Amino acid sequence: MQIETLLCARWIIPVQPEGLVIENHALAISNGNIIEILPIEPALQKYHANSVEHLEHHALIPGFVNSHTHAAMAFLRGIADDQPLMEWLQGTIWPIEQKWMGEAFVRDGTELAIAEMIRGGITCFNDMYFFPEITAKIAQKTGIRAKIGLIQIEFPSAWAQNSDEYLAKGLTLHDELRDQKLVTAAFAPHAPYSVSDPSLEKIRIYAEELELPVHMHVHETADEIKQSQEQFGVRPLTRLQKLGLIGPSFIAVHMTQLSEAEIQMIAQWGCHVVHCPESNMKLASGFCPVAQLLDAGINVALGTDSAASNNDLDILGEMRTAALLAKGYAVDASAVPAATALRMATFNGAKALGLDSITGSLEPNKAADITAIRLDTLETQPVFDPISQIVYAANRDQITDVWVAGQHLLKARELSCLDIDKIKEKVNLWAGKLSSTEQEQ
Amino acid sequence: MQIETLLCARWIIPVQPEGLVIENHALAISNGNIIEILPIEPALQKYHANSVEHLEHHALIPGFVNSHTHAAMAFLRGIADDQPLMEWLQGTIWPIEQKWMGEAFVRDGTELAIAEMIRGGITCFNDMYFFPEITAKIAQKTGIRAKIGLIQIEFPSAWAQNSDEYLAKGLTLHDELRDQKLVTAAFAPHAPYSVSDPSLEKIRIYAEELELPVHMHVHETADEIKQSQEQFGVRPLTRLQKLGLIGPSFIAVHMTQLSEAEIQMIAQWGCHVVHCPESNMKLASGFCPVAQLLDAGINVALGTDSAASNNDLDILGEMRTAALLAKGYAVDASAVPAATALRMATFNGAKALGLDSITGSLEPNKAADITAIRLDTLETQPVFDPISQIVYAANRDQITDVWVAGQHLLKARELSCLDIDKIKEKVNLWAGKLSSTEQEQ
Repeated sequence: MQIETLLCARWIIPVQPEGLVIENHALAISNGNIIEILPIEPALQKYHANSVEHLEHHALIPGFVNSHTHAAMAFLRGIADDQPLMEWLQGTIWPIEQKWMGEAFVRDGTELAIAEMIRGGITCFNDMYFFPEITAKIAQKTGIRAKIGLIQIEFPSAWAQNSDEYLAKGLTLHDELRDQKLVTAAFAPHAPYSVSDPSLEKIRIYAEELELPVHMHVHETADEIKQSQEQFGVRPLTRLQKLGLIGPSFIAVHMTQLSEAEIQMIAQWGCHVVHCPESNMKLASGFCPVAQLLDAGINVALGTDSAASNNDLDILGEMRTAALLAKGYAVDASAVPAATALRMATFNGAKALGLDSITGSLEPNKAADITAIRLDTLETQPVFDPISQIVYAANRDQITDVWVAGQHLLKARELSCLDIDKIKEKVNLWAGKLSSTEQEQ
Repeated sequence: MQIETLLCARWIIPVQPEGLVIENHALAISNGNIIEILPIEPALQKYHANSVEHLEHHALIPGFVNSHTHAAMAFLRGIADDQPLMEWLQGTIWPIEQKWMGEAFVRDGTELAIAEMIRGGITCFNDMYFFPEITAKIAQKTGIRAKIGLIQIEFPSAWAQNSDEYLAKGLTLHDELRDQKLVTAAFAPHAPYSVSDPSLEKIRIYAEELELPVHMHVHETADEIKQSQEQFGVRPLTRLQKLGLIGPSFIAVHMTQLSEAEIQMIAQWGCHVVHCPESNMKLASGFCPVAQLLDAGINVALGTDSAASNNDLDILGEMRTAALLAKGYAVDASAVPAATALRMATFNGAKALGLDSITGSLEPNKAADITAIRLDTLETQPVFDPISQIVYAANRDQITDVWVAGQHLLKARELSCLDIDKIKEKVNLWAGKLSSTEQEQ
């Protein structure tokens, strides 16, 4: 049978079911989809592939899903660190965005971010930023899978002047993406403290009608809770629930402030939690009770947040941090074992975005969204358990190849879809501009 | 003036003083020592070097000091994860050590560990394990700097049968190392729960007489505190203090269980704390209150612990984890800023080991223990602040070159002192043996 691609690998880790490791098998790709996983010898006899890859020291895993990003902020990596959230936002991030944020900023920042993400084995990201039509365009150009957030916020920006304009522009973009295969839309009201009840009510109605997920920062800091109680008399989750927003299409990001009762409610509502451990620690926001959430049956995915508060877009690293931190925080060394961490970084992300019938695991009839990671480097020797090595020891430079819907976006560490030298040139131009803004502060 | 080596670098980060970044300077090395740091042009005129390196996109930093290791355990990386400490020790680690630990195990495991550490920019490590004479021999062979722990523990092993034999063998090794420049000894009583009062009293006497540091696991878990209170009526730190052990030569590793009063006492005693954040989280031991310790003026260094409980020997990664975790735990985004984290990973380690007059910072008259890290990879763009990029964004594969006492141990990512292919072959032989032990359990 003639197919596009046959990947023969030392290990295949499908993630579904959790913990399974298959040795010396091949994965057959046709029309961008996985069609079969079978032993190498029969695979070579059964399939005639345009491209056969022998990945003798590699594990194939589902491509990582970065479930919370602000991709265009990649330029702001390291421009200001070690500051409390509001000082950092008001003193550096917002003034820079006010002065520079526009189509070119979003285009060039998103290119940098997508290049970094593909090199790090990420095949899908869930974004929230201004000028989402530009983010969508760059994602389409590169071939990565993405959920583009139709951002809503109650203050004017270079993109939209008021909540009606945010909504209208968002709906226009959703229309434009309606027939796209890889790049689709989600609503993205920024946070409970920055979006009004009337705007949230409209979003609820449209989200139901258009069957779109709703992606939002929720319970990120203790201050957010306090403010909400002062302004609305209730905690943000309660307010969102009363507005009818919370259900299986709701993606709640951060969630570092949760009562036992709230955890039970989240489980009942069936909404998804995106855990961003490195950003939460860097901004001293708090600790998400991941082990408790998983025990309650809640779907927990992983996100990097932006490069400005992390400072990388490295889901491999985030997965390790999540696995380690969950044990420390729960005082339980068996919390979030390696296979669960890998599932959080892949399948759980796809599920949160409503894409789990398409991506997030290596199974026949799913898209060929695949990451190959070599485990023969000294730093991951010996290999008693490839999942342990990937989660607890590997670095993202061991990722050699990435496919999205069968397209070979990273080939032996070379990006096929973006020119790294050009990106670096643009980055340096932007760094000069942004530094001058920073010095004016 | 004729010298051995001149390193011309885009950035030099001496660490002493903390936070300083020097641009476009050269570092001159003669007889294994740093003799001057000066601008590149005058340096090229003043010095005729046998070797001139142009590191145009790199930062030079002091080599990392890994202040707590069990190097030989590198083979046990990933053999058992996600288990509580005692289950992990009793079910996997101790049975394997009982069956396999000996000269060959320590030799081959230490080679793997040192290869990994040098590739990760580590120029000095502080070890604690059985057969320390073998660890010393491998360290000497490779050219890395090391403090070799003269281990003391109240149970028999393949190395020694009882506490007298442990002490005698340790003292013999100290004698052998007496005139060594790079590899020297420290006492290493394992932990308060595994070493008796009489043994600790002897160690105190010899440590004073021989002016050796004492390296010990202390207050690692809540169980340790509880047991000590039951057995001795006091917390371990109090017992050690009564035994006269605690002072400026005492290196207390882990310290996750500390009262406010104990923190004040540690500050007064002038002893050193080695923080191992990833091991502490992985084994769910607890959180070391790093920000509080630093605020109290205590010297805090960083260690990886063994590859069995981490699972890497990556001080660059440990530094990032330490900086992030300290902020989250202290609920203060300004805690442990990047420059402080870098100091913990370098100078503070040297200080803890009593080596701060020799290594830990880039200053004239110190040894040329230097790590070069390139910052022009996509993942560390743009460079507003090289210290931020090193701490918050870089991976250890960006480390290109490492010198110890002027010897070029890693050159453009190639190890000059060890054969990686041979190490991998041995690793695979060991992995087979160890797997069979594990299956017997």
